[in-house]
Amino acid sequence: MHAIGIDIGGTKVAGALVDEAGAIHRLERRPTPAGDPAAILDVVVELIRELSDGHDIVAAGVAAAGFIDVTQSLVYYAPNINWRGEPLRELLEARLPGLDITVDNDANAAGWAEYRFGAGRGTTDMTMLTIGTGVGGAIVSGGQLFRGGFGAAGEIGHLRVVPNGHPCGCGQKGCIEQYGSGRALLRFANEIADAGGIGRELDIARTANGGTLDGAIVSELIQLTDAGALAALHELGDWLGQACASIGAVLDPQVFVFGGGVAVAGDLLLDPIRAAYLAHLPARGFHPEPVFAVAELVNDAGVVGAADLARIHARRS
Amino acid sequence: MHAIGIDIGGTKVAGALVDEAGAIHRLERRPTPAGDPAAILDVVVELIRELSDGHDIVAAGVAAAGFIDVTQSLVYYAPNINWRGEPLRELLEARLPGLDITVDNDANAAGWAEYRFGAGRGTTDMTMLTIGTGVGGAIVSGGQLFRGGFGAAGEIGHLRVVPNGHPCGCGQKGCIEQYGSGRALLRFANEIADAGGIGRELDIARTANGGTLDGAIVSELIQLTDAGALAALHELGDWLGQACASIGAVLDPQVFVFGGGVAVAGDLLLDPIRAAYLAHLPARGFHPEPVFAVAELVNDAGVVGAADLARIHARRS
Repeated sequence: MHAIGIDIGGTKVAGALVDEAGAIHRLERRPTPAGDPAAILDVVVELIRELSDGHDIVAAGVAAAGFIDVTQSLVYYAPNINWRGEPLRELLEARLPGLDITVDNDANAAGWAEYRFGAGRGTTDMTMLTIGTGVGGAIVSGGQLFRGGFGAAGEIGHLRVVPNGHPCGCGQKGCIEQYGSGRALLRFANEIADAGGIGRELDIARTANGGTLDGAIVSELIQLTDAGALAALHELGDWLGQACASIGAVLDPQVFVFGGGVAVAGDLLLDPIRAAYLAHLPARGFHPEPVFAVAELVNDAGVVGAADLARIHARRS
Repeated sequence: MHAIGIDIGGTKVAGALVDEAGAIHRLERRPTPAGDPAAILDVVVELIRELSDGHDIVAAGVAAAGFIDVTQSLVYYAPNINWRGEPLRELLEARLPGLDITVDNDANAAGWAEYRFGAGRGTTDMTMLTIGTGVGGAIVSGGQLFRGGFGAAGEIGHLRVVPNGHPCGCGQKGCIEQYGSGRALLRFANEIADAGGIGRELDIARTANGGTLDGAIVSELIQLTDAGALAALHELGDWLGQACASIGAVLDPQVFVFGGGVAVAGDLLLDPIRAAYLAHLPARGFHPEPVFAVAELVNDAGVVGAADLARIHARRS
């Protein structure tokens, strides 16, 4: 049976018709009417109606950044959409009679897709880190998505790695998001460019781009194996590996999966992560070691995971 | 139906006959034949036989410090007992025919007992920290003990809180065990005693004890509300609360439970934990806050939890 997955991002809303094997049969994208919650709701309703057309759909899942309650109904807080305590499921079910609607955190939806159909398949316990502007997290344990007591588990980006460290958008300091995100990679790259030496190519590219480095420039230099760009990536991987040693002590996953734009670097990212993980692993040598892998579904993981979580919910209820 | 719980500690082996409500009907203790794995096994077999006598027992659970595999059978590594890859369930079932034997980490067993019969009852998601010589951890999620992919989850004591921090027995540096344990409390108390001022009473007590502070002395001064001892406890609680802010971002429990000897301080410990948690909470104000509580079962939690986990396993198999 097909289900619909919707992923509300900061710039676009994606919607897909997804089958039970996680394959996308139709994919639509609309610009996000940012700052206008009612208009966003309209876009979601319209996408679900359009994608359902001609299909026997019973469930649709909506993913968004923010805190979602444990019953998959209520958006406590969605920073991009200005929702506070929004009863999203109720609002959508009123406008889409007969459909079972669920709401999930976007990183959880993407993680669930990787667990079911991507780099985590075949395991029971997976931890996923999505390296975007920030660092998103998702935890699967015993084959279940780990939601926590209030639905807000898996906010791994806000694990503190440095007391009084770099300020974070969450209001705290020293979160791994400030050392392991795409934004952190740019900070490291700028520092290396400033220092000269191996940072020369980064500095030249920065000057050519009007004095600013962006993700595309750094990624391209990484692909060209520029020493400065690789040093920035290594610093990122080193922090992520250190964080994984702590996370592993608590969560003990069989596999760590890394998603987001930076993950296309593959082993160039995974190698320093593995090395730092092993160097910082408590009681090293006394228990099996996890696998480190990059995500396989990349951009579509959110819609695929949201659809699958909705299908599971509809079956249970 | 009654079950038997065994808790193998560094100095004693405790065994109990436990009913389905978690009540202990008989409790026995033997000295641990430390450094002699075969003799420890004999003590465990003897205790189980003795406690079973005259009762219709189908299950016995054994708890020990260390890494236990996810099938509750194998001790990968038990630092106190010199077990490495010990097939403990198989060895015990061979000597105790008809009994369903399970093996669990001691902190997990104690945490499970608190969840079922103590400070965590009535919740679905609990995180427990046991403040002893080290810091033990246990996680319950969705009403299930969180074992992880290899059975080693919940080693919260080895969450790193300070890069290049205080050396830890696990081979790493900066683990919360070095800032939130009974041993850390003594270090803080010694530092305060060295500094004079409010440390005067601690210094006097230390001198009277032959130059060494111990847990009993510091606890007594805490009960007497000595300013130096309270400052040491406050420092401990401050670190624990900071760690809980990170742990909460990942695990999102409804309740944090604190066990171990230091927890008898009650609100004197919980108040600084709560204050530091709130001060370090990411995105404060946007989702419900957990409860902070001290453990209720104290010394007997290990045997009660081991018995209950064995009963659950026997029912499933």
